[in-house]
Order: sequence, then structure tokens, then C-alpha cells
Amino acid sequence: MGALRIQRTKEIINKTDLAILVISLEEFSHDYKDFALELEWCKSLKSKSIPVVGVLNKIDLAASKEDIIEKLSLLEDIFQIQFVSISAEEKLNLKALKSSIIKLTPENFNSSNLVGDIIKSGSKVLLVAPQDIQAPKGRLILPQVQVLRDLLDNKAIPVTVTLDNLDMALELLNYKPDLVITDSQVFKIVHSKINEETPLTSFSIIMARSKGDLAEFVRGAKTIRSLKAGDKILIAEACTHHQLKGDIAREKLPTLLKSIEENIIVDNYSGKDFPENLNQYKLVIQCGSCMFNRAEVMSRIESCKEKGVPITNFGVAIAEINGILDRVIKPFHI
Amino acid sequence: MGALRIQRTKEIINKTDLAILVISLEEFSHDYKDFALELEWCKSLKSKSIPVVGVLNKIDLAASKEDIIEKLSLLEDIFQIQFVSISAEEKLNLKALKSSIIKLTPENFNSSNLVGDIIKSGSKVLLVAPQDIQAPKGRLILPQVQVLRDLLDNKAIPVTVTLDNLDMALELLNYKPDLVITDSQVFKIVHSKINEETPLTSFSIIMARSKGDLAEFVRGAKTIRSLKAGDKILIAEACTHHQLKGDIAREKLPTLLKSIEENIIVDNYSGKDFPENLNQYKLVIQCGSCMFNRAEVMSRIESCKEKGVPITNFGVAIAEINGILDRVIKPFHI
Repeated sequence: MGALRIQRTKEIINKTDLAILVISLEEFSHDYKDFALELEWCKSLKSKSIPVVGVLNKIDLAASKEDIIEKLSLLEDIFQIQFVSISAEEKLNLKALKSSIIKLTPENFNSSNLVGDIIKSGSKVLLVAPQDIQAPKGRLILPQVQVLRDLLDNKAIPVTVTLDNLDMALELLNYKPDLVITDSQVFKIVHSKINEETPLTSFSIIMARSKGDLAEFVRGAKTIRSLKAGDKILIAEACTHHQLKGDIAREKLPTLLKSIEENIIVDNYSGKDFPENLNQYKLVIQCGSCMFNRAEVMSRIESCKEKGVPITNFGVAIAEINGILDRVIKPFHI
Repeated sequence: MGALRIQRTKEIINKTDLAILVISLEEFSHDYKDFALELEWCKSLKSKSIPVVGVLNKIDLAASKEDIIEKLSLLEDIFQIQFVSISAEEKLNLKALKSSIIKLTPENFNSSNLVGDIIKSGSKVLLVAPQDIQAPKGRLILPQVQVLRDLLDNKAIPVTVTLDNLDMALELLNYKPDLVITDSQVFKIVHSKINEETPLTSFSIIMARSKGDLAEFVRGAKTIRSLKAGDKILIAEACTHHQLKGDIAREKLPTLLKSIEENIIVDNYSGKDFPENLNQYKLVIQCGSCMFNRAEVMSRIESCKEKGVPITNFGVAIAEINGILDRVIKPFHI
């Protein structure tokens, strides 16, 4: 394969939840075939804890049943993973392949690990969701929709308010909501109105946890206060969107960071690729990653951990700078 | 214009909220120009109460100011609407054009006339929103999102539950919610748990009102019980989606109708066009029209009214057949 294609494949590995390694029965007839490249991919996938389903295809071309069994055994020896023998052409054994895929699918695949695990059936949850100019007209922003759905799926009772009705809703809930989830922007007001015992978190912390590793992000954010003059920080965004005035990655977040240590150096990086030379950074701050799936964010976390570079995300970093992080992560017991 | 193009333009008129009639200054130099076709469009638009903004373009080519004034006056005489003189090429007077457009824009344009007008600031609204297999995974269906947003915009306090927590939520609200909005499918259970004084409606009635004319739909639905053998009914759908098993337009709704009068004849019609020969039908039942804007639905209502054919929509018809219509329209005082 060309270098570019190999590079692209590496990038795709970072977004992969499960891999299927297909070897054709025909390939055994090539004298030079040593599966070196496939073995390299397989190792690379396993090193990232990505499950690999082995497939021996084109068994309709096999000389005999024994031929298939022999080759399966050989492949399992080489790759140290289980193989399923199929024929895509003749639609043979596809059910077994599907079973293997389902069996190896990561348990949290596609699951919305939002708030279901920190509430009980019947929990009364107060959502403070101001609808500002940035909210889509006549709609709710996605984190609010996802949290509402997760609460309903977990048989909680969400009571939703804008700031205007916060007092009335607290009264309705007898000042004892089982959980309060607020938009980060109005955290201070909400915090001032509830007692210290009431579990409180924010939509952005919930999303950070669901899209990454909250414990790791908290560790990363905790390094912000010890940043020194000359330290380099990488701010990474998933998408290459048109930059608006007051852009969070290019304006708001750098300004907040510089309020702590004026002479830090901020690099902005946007897009699918992640820089190789992470060592130069004292901290990586990743965006909310609405355009990334969880596997992709986890892969960035892994890359940082490998290089010993702390990583956090926008919401967690801002919570730390605003001095509210400890309060909003408390409900998650990390 | 070709017949097809004229037909298409007619269809587009049915979806139009506001029209801009552009006459080029150059057109006055054609001897044969009598604006007959433009006048026909203009009348057609006005007959449907669609506002028309007149524009005299290419004034940069005018011989003099007097020339422009003379032509403006002539056009206003012919069309009986106000004209703005502009030059698109030279960007002259565009601000005046924008003002005219804004001035003539229908007041309810783009406004979500959902429940804001039947609640008060601080109203406690109970939403019963079962999340069945048809709801998108990890999300809420659009009517639920829109109603939630409308409630927040109008400073109400939505308390959202699935059926499991209905009792608990009613207790929380001291059995006196200011309004209950339920998924139609669980209407009977919800109805049995609240007292007769509690205003109760359904998401589908709210959407029917926002996307059409609820009073007209109710009048239409009220004819269902007097359908006779041999009567023809038109079931019209906005989109030509792939038909699923248990399809509401082709299976569920016809079955419900036939439970009232077995020997009715149901015609199904789907897509953007609306049949011309409406006279043959005793009733038209329009789908929820998620793929139509309000103007398009209103135009279908107008067509039916012209021909004296009752029209209703899916949600309103089903509510009537299930005997709950009077209860769910009560909050709207129609």
C-alpha cells in the first residue's frame, strides 16, 4: 500500500469500534504471502484494545472441508484471534459471522452513558436550560435532547426550566431535587440557589463523560493552575468550521487560560488529524467533539497518555478555570 | 411560458408565504408588453391572501428620475400593489426593498403557534411522552422537542414523564397540572388519571393546529360518523415514503374508518400534488405534514373549502374515531 493509504488507515483505526480482518482463501496460493502487513494491522488494532473479527472468505473455492479447517487453524495461529469461515459469494455461514461481530462488539458501543447510572427510577431531576440566541429556533440543542431522553429511558422525572422559573421549580420540588443539571453559563446563579447537599452537574460535563474519559479530563484540567510562562498548550477542534467572532477555541478559551498565566503559548489545531509531536505541549484541550464518535476521542486520550501529556476538554477546562469543577463532577464519584 | 411551467408555478404558489413580482424597466420598451401574464399571477396570489411586493428593477437604465416615477405609477395602477424601484446591478434602494418585504411578511410567518397562547408564565405542564421503538435512539421525536421549546420560550415549567412515572408526576404537581399534553397512544390511561377540570390535549392536536387550521380539521373530522356506504374518502400524504407494515395511511387509518362504515372507498394519494377532482370525495384526510410548511397545508384546506369538501388530518381524525376529540380540543377554545 502507498504511504498515504497507510497513513489514512492509521487514522481510521483511531475511529474504529470493531475491526473485521478478511483473508481470502485464494491468498494462500500466492507463494510470497506471509500476511506481514495484515499482522501489523492486527497488532496495531489490538494495542488499542479494538476487537478484531477474523474472516476467511471464499470458502466456496476450497478443495475440501479439511482444506478449510487447515487454513482456519493456520490463520488463528498467525493472528491469535478467532476466525470464521464464510463465502460472501455463496452466502455461506454469514450468520456465524454476525454472531462473532455481536459477541465482540464493545459493551458500551452506541450506548449513551449520560446520566442513567447516577439517578434512580423516579428521581426528580431539575434541568436548567436557558434558551439563548445560539439555540436553534423552535428546537432544543442536542445535549438537552439527549439528556432528556436518557432521563426518560431511566424512568426519571425531568423538570425543565429557563432561569426565570428556577425559584418556582425549586419550590415545586420542595428544594430537594435528586439532581440538578444546568447549562454551564448560569452555573453561578443555580449554585447559589441550591444547598450543598444537592447533586449538581452541567450539560457539558455530562457530554464530556459520554464522549471521553471524565477522570482523565479532570486530571488534565487540574494542571491548568500550575501552567508557567512559556508553556505550550494545544487547543484541538474536531471540525474546521468557519470561525465566528468570540470563537471559543481561538478567543474565549485562550483568554481564560491567559487570565491564569499570561505568557503561555497557545497552538490551535483543527480537523481530523492529531499532531504527532505532542511532547512539546504541557496540556491538550480537546473540543466538545460533537463531530467525533467516542472511539475517536478515546484514541486522542490514549495518544496523550502514551506521551505523558495531560488532556482535558473545553467544558471541563472552563469549569476548572471558573472554579466549579469539583462541584460539578461530584455526582459522578470519580 | 409552457403549460408545464405554468402548472409548476401554480403548485409553488400553494407553498408561498410572500411573493415578489419583479418587472424590469427594459420591459416597457417592448411594444407588445401588456403584463397580462404577470397580472394573472398577481391576482392568483392575492386570491390566496398571499402578500405581493412589487419591484421595478434596472432603474440604472432609466433616462431620468421622472422616467422612474412615471413607470412606478403606471405599475401601481396596473397591479394595485405598491412597487419599490431598485437596481440589482448597482445595488440601488435595496434597503427599501427589504423593508417592504418585512412589512408585508405575514405576522405568523415562521412563528410556532404551538401552546404558548394557552398557557401562562409559570404554568406547570405535564408532558406524557412514552419512548417507544419508533422514537429515534437517544433522541426525542420532533413534536416533543418543539413543544418543550415552546413551553420554555413561554416561561412554563414542563414536567416530562413516560407512563411509568405518571402517578408520581401527578402527585408532584398536587394533581393540578395547568395543562397535560399526552402522546395520543396513551390518551385513555392519562385521561383516566386526571380530573375533568384539568386541560388535556395531545401532541398531534398541537401539531395539527400549528400546521393547519384546527377548527376546520375538527369540522372535517365531525363528518366521519355520518359516512355512508359508497362514500369516497381521500387520504393524502405529503411524502412518498417507503410503505411500512402497519402504515398509517394505507392500513391503520382505513381500518379505523371502516370500523365506522365498512363500505366506504378509500383513495390514497401521496406527494406534492393534490388531485383536482376533489368533488368526488366526502372527506379529505391529510397526513401530519411534517414535510410541508404551513402555507402548503393551508392551501390544501383552501382548495377543499372552495369545493365544499370537508378536510381533516390524521391526528384529528384518529382522535374523533377514538372518541377523544372533544376532550383534547377543549384547551384551544375553538
